[in-house]
Amino acid sequence: SKPQPVQQAAWQSRRQSMPETIYPRGRTALLLVDPYNDFLSERGKVFPRIKPIVDEVGLLDNLRRLDGAVRAAGIQVVIVPHRRWEPGDYEDWDHPNPSQRLIMQRHSFARGEWGGEWHPDFAPKPGDLIAGEHWGQSGFAGTNLDFLLKQKGITHVIVVGLLANTCIESTARFAMELGYHVTLVRDATAAFSHEMMHAAHELNGPTYAHSIQTTAEVIAALPAAPRSKEPVQ
Amino acid sequence: SKPQPVQQAAWQSRRQSMPETIYPRGRTALLLVDPYNDFLSERGKVFPRIKPIVDEVGLLDNLRRLDGAVRAAGIQVVIVPHRRWEPGDYEDWDHPNPSQRLIMQRHSFARGEWGGEWHPDFAPKPGDLIAGEHWGQSGFAGTNLDFLLKQKGITHVIVVGLLANTCIESTARFAMELGYHVTLVRDATAAFSHEMMHAAHELNGPTYAHSIQTTAEVIAALPAAPRSKEPVQ
Amino acid sequence: SKPQPVQQAAWQSRRQSMPETIYPRGRTALLLVDPYNDFLSERGKVFPRIKPIVDEVGLLDNLRRLDGAVRAAGIQVVIVPHRRWEPGDYEDWDHPNPSQRLIMQRHSFARGEWGGEWHPDFAPKPGDLIAGEHWGQSGFAGTNLDFLLKQKGITHVIVVGLLANTCIESTARFAMELGYHVTLVRDATAAFSHEMMHAAHELNGPTYAHSIQTTAEVIAALPAAPRSKEPVQ
Amino acid sequence: SKPQPVQQAAWQSRRQSMPETIYPRGRTALLLVDPYNDFLSERGKVFPRIKPIVDEVGLLDNLRRLDGAVRAAGIQVVIVPHRRWEPGDYEDWDHPNPSQRLIMQRHSFARGEWGGEWHPDFAPKPGDLIAGEHWGQSGFAGTNLDFLLKQKGITHVIVVGLLANTCIESTARFAMELGYHVTLVRDATAAFSHEMMHAAHELNGPTYAHSIQTTAEVIAALPAAPRSKEPVQ
Repeated sequence: SKPQPVQQAAWQSRRQSMPETIYPRGRTALLLVDPYNDFLSERGKVFPRIKPIVDEVGLLDNLRRLDGAVRAAGIQVVIVPHRRWEPGDYEDWDHPNPSQRLIMQRHSFARGEWGGEWHPDFAPKPGDLIAGEHWGQSGFAGTNLDFLLKQKGITHVIVVGLLANTCIESTARFAMELGYHVTLVRDATAAFSHEMMHAAHELNGPTYAHSIQTTAEVIAALPAAPRSKEPVQ
Repeated sequence: SKPQPVQQAAWQSRRQSMPETIYPRGRTALLLVDPYNDFLSERGKVFPRIKPIVDEVGLLDNLRRLDGAVRAAGIQVVIVPHRRWEPGDYEDWDHPNPSQRLIMQRHSFARGEWGGEWHPDFAPKPGDLIAGEHWGQSGFAGTNLDFLLKQKGITHVIVVGLLANTCIESTARFAMELGYHVTLVRDATAAFSHEMMHAAHELNGPTYAHSIQTTAEVIAALPAAPRSKEPVQ
Repeated sequence: SKPQPVQQAAWQSRRQSMPETIYPRGRTALLLVDPYNDFLSERGKVFPRIKPIVDEVGLLDNLRRLDGAVRAAGIQVVIVPHRRWEPGDYEDWDHPNPSQRLIMQRHSFARGEWGGEWHPDFAPKPGDLIAGEHWGQSGFAGTNLDFLLKQKGITHVIVVGLLANTCIESTARFAMELGYHVTLVRDATAAFSHEMMHAAHELNGPTYAHSIQTTAEVIAALPAAPRSKEPVQ
Repeated sequence: SKPQPVQQAAWQSRRQSMPETIYPRGRTALLLVDPYNDFLSERGKVFPRIKPIVDEVGLLDNLRRLDGAVRAAGIQVVIVPHRRWEPGDYEDWDHPNPSQRLIMQRHSFARGEWGGEWHPDFAPKPGDLIAGEHWGQSGFAGTNLDFLLKQKGITHVIVVGLLANTCIESTARFAMELGYHVTLVRDATAAFSHEMMHAAHELNGPTYAHSIQTTAEVIAALPAAPRSKEPVQ
C-alpha cells in the first residue's frame, strides 16, 4: 500500500543478483522451528492469533509438502524446539523479555500438556535431530543446535516454522552470523499480522538471508532423491 | 495506514506492563553502533539513503545529547564498529550475505578512507571501549563485545546507531539472547524507510527488547551524575 | 619428581603477583559441576576411579563446607550438569569424542537411574540455578549457563566439582574466555591421577585462572553473611 | 617417571579404539596458531623458554613439512593469530588473566614490531584464511574463526603451533565443543616444559581430541594431491 521507497531498490536488485541456490544433499538441513500443537493445531493457545495468515499462505499443507520432499531428497531434518514452559520459568531472572513475560502468563508450550506436544504431522522421525530447547527466540542461543549441525557437516539451512518475525527471524539471523547459508520460505511460516510477514520477508530478510523462496521453489531446487543403495550422507 | 490487527494488542499491553527501567550506573553501557562518516556525515556513501529519516528523527542531535548525557552520568560508552572494507573482503567466502555483496560493490566503510573514519562527534574518547569489528549485522557475532562488557560487569545495554532494522536489531536481538537487559531508542537510529523503522520499533522490538524509548525518555531515566570524588564504577 | 624447569618460574611469580581476590556477594556464583551419584557416591560408576584423590583431598567434606559457606554468604549457587546419558546418545554423530565414546559404553549419569541423580548432599535448593546439560566438557558449551549468569549480574565464578582436568578445566577455560573472573579450588575437585591434578592446578590453571585456592582460603575470602533484612542481591 | 595409574588405562584403550581418521580434502583445515617471530624465531621474546622442546621435537621442520604437505593435498590453511599487543592493552579490564598480565609487562607479539610479525616461513599465502585475533587462549573465543570455517564447509581441524597447553589446548577444546573433529599433533607444537607437553598429549588430549598423532602420521593420512584440473574444493 505504501509507495516503494527508492532506497529499497538496492536491496531488491541485490536479491535478484543473488546466485541461484543449490542445496547439497549431505550438507543441507531443514530446521523446523517450534512445531507444537499450541502453534499449529486448531485448539492451540497461539493458533487463533496466527490462523488468518496460516490459512492464507497454506502453512500446514506447505510444511507437509516440504517435510515430505526434503525427506525424499535425503536431507537432514532438525527439530528446533522452544523451551516448554514449566512452573517457575523465568521467575528468578532479573529481566525476562516481553515474550517470556507473556509465556509466564499463558503457559504456552507447557511441558506435559497437549499444547507442548509435537503437532502429530511434525513429530520427529528416526534419524531426525532434536536440538536443545531455546529460551529466547533464536534456536542457536544457549543450545547445541550449531554443534549438531557441525556433527553432520551441514552448511545450508532452510528455516521454517513459527513465528516469521520472532523465532524464525532470530534463528535465521543467528545462522547467517554463524556462517551458514540461510533460506527463508515465505509461505512455510506465519505471524500475527500481514505487516509482520512483510517485515520478515521484504524488509529484513533481504538484508541477511541468502535466499527467500516459496515452498514450491525450494522443492524444485532440492537434489534428486538418492538411489536406494546410495548412502544418504 | 493498515488497521492495527487485534493480535498485536497483546504485544502492546505487554509493553505497557513492562516494569520501568532503571539504569544502574556501573552496570549500564551505551552501545554506539557503526558511527562512521559513511553513515552519519553528509558526504557519506550510505547517508543519502537514510537522510530523510535522519532528519525527521533528529538523529545527529539525539546521538549528541545521548552521548553527553551518558558520559555525564558516568555510564560506559562502547563503540561497536562494522568491519571496514578492505580489498578482497568476502571474496573467498562460499556465501557472503546480501549486505556483504553490496559492500563488495560499494566499499562502504573502507579502511584508510574518510568514509571508514569515525564521525568526528562520535570518535572514541579516553575510557571508551572499542569492540572488535563485526562482519555481519550483530556487534556480538565473532567479536569480543560480550567479553568486554563482562570485564566491566555490564548487565544493561542501550543500543543506538545504524541501521535500525539491520545492525541495531541484530545486535539487540543477540544482546537479549546473551542475557542483557536491552533498550532500543527509537529516535537515536535510522533506516532506509519508514516501514523499516516501524518494523524495528513497533513490530519486532516489542517481542524481544526490554524497553523501547525516546532519547528524552532515556536521558530522564539515567542515574544522577556521580559526585566528583566518587568512583564511577 | 621432575626438576622444576626454569621456564615455569615466570608463571609462579605471576601467580604470586595476582591481586588478592574479593568476591562481591551479588556478583559471585559457585558453579557446582556434575554433582551426580556416579561421580560422588561410593557405588557410583566413576567413583572408584577417583576415590584415591577424593579421599586424599577430602573432596566430599570440602564441597559440603564450601556449599554451606557460600549459601551463608548469600552467594548464588549454580548446578552445572552433564548430559544424562539416554539410549541412542551420540550414535548419530559423525565424530563423538573419546569421553562420549566411553559414556556410550558405560552409560554414565544415565537418565532415570540412580547414577544420574544428584548426590543427596548437593541436590539443588530453592533459589539455585540449574544450567542446561552440557554434552562435552564445558558447562558453557551449547547451554544457557552464560545467559543465566548474566541474568544475575554474575562476574566472578568459583568452579568446583568433577573432573579437575576435563569438565572443570574446560568450564573454567570457557569462563575466562567469556570474561568472567575465575577461581579454581584445588581440594574441591578430583581426577583419575595425581599428575592430572598437578596439570590442572600447577601447569594449566596458572595460565588462565585468576585465582587458585584451597577450600579454606576461598571460605576465608567470602563476604560476611548478609544481615537478615538485607536483600541478598 | 611416575607409575602409570590404573585409572588412565581406560583413556588409553579408548584412544586405541578410536576409528582411524580420514581427512576429507574439502572439509579439513590446518589451524596454524600464533606463528609469530616472538614464538618461532631465535631472537623472539618467548622463544628461549620453549627452545628446549622446540629443538627436541623438531618443531620448525615439522611445521614446514606439514605446511607443505597440506598445501600439496589441497587442504585449507587458516592462520589463527593472538592479539598483537598494543599500548593500553588489558589496562581498562577488571580482571585480565595471568597470561595477559604477563603480556602487559613483556609486550609479546607487539603490533608494528618484528616480534609481532609472522615467522617468514609461515606467513599467509594466497588463499589462506586469517582469523581475527584472539585475546585469551582459544582461537575461537571472540573471533570469526568458526564463521570462516563454516564458510568453507570445514568439519575437521588439525591444530598446530603454540603453546601446547595454552592456546593449542584451548583452541582444540573449543573446536571439539563446537562440533569439529579435532586432531592434535604432538611434535608440531611446544611448551615450557616436558610435563606440560605430557599433560597436553597424554593426560588431557585423550579425553577430548579425536586424534593425537605425529607429523609423519598426519602427513601419511592426508588425501592424495588433487589432479591439476580438479577443483580443490
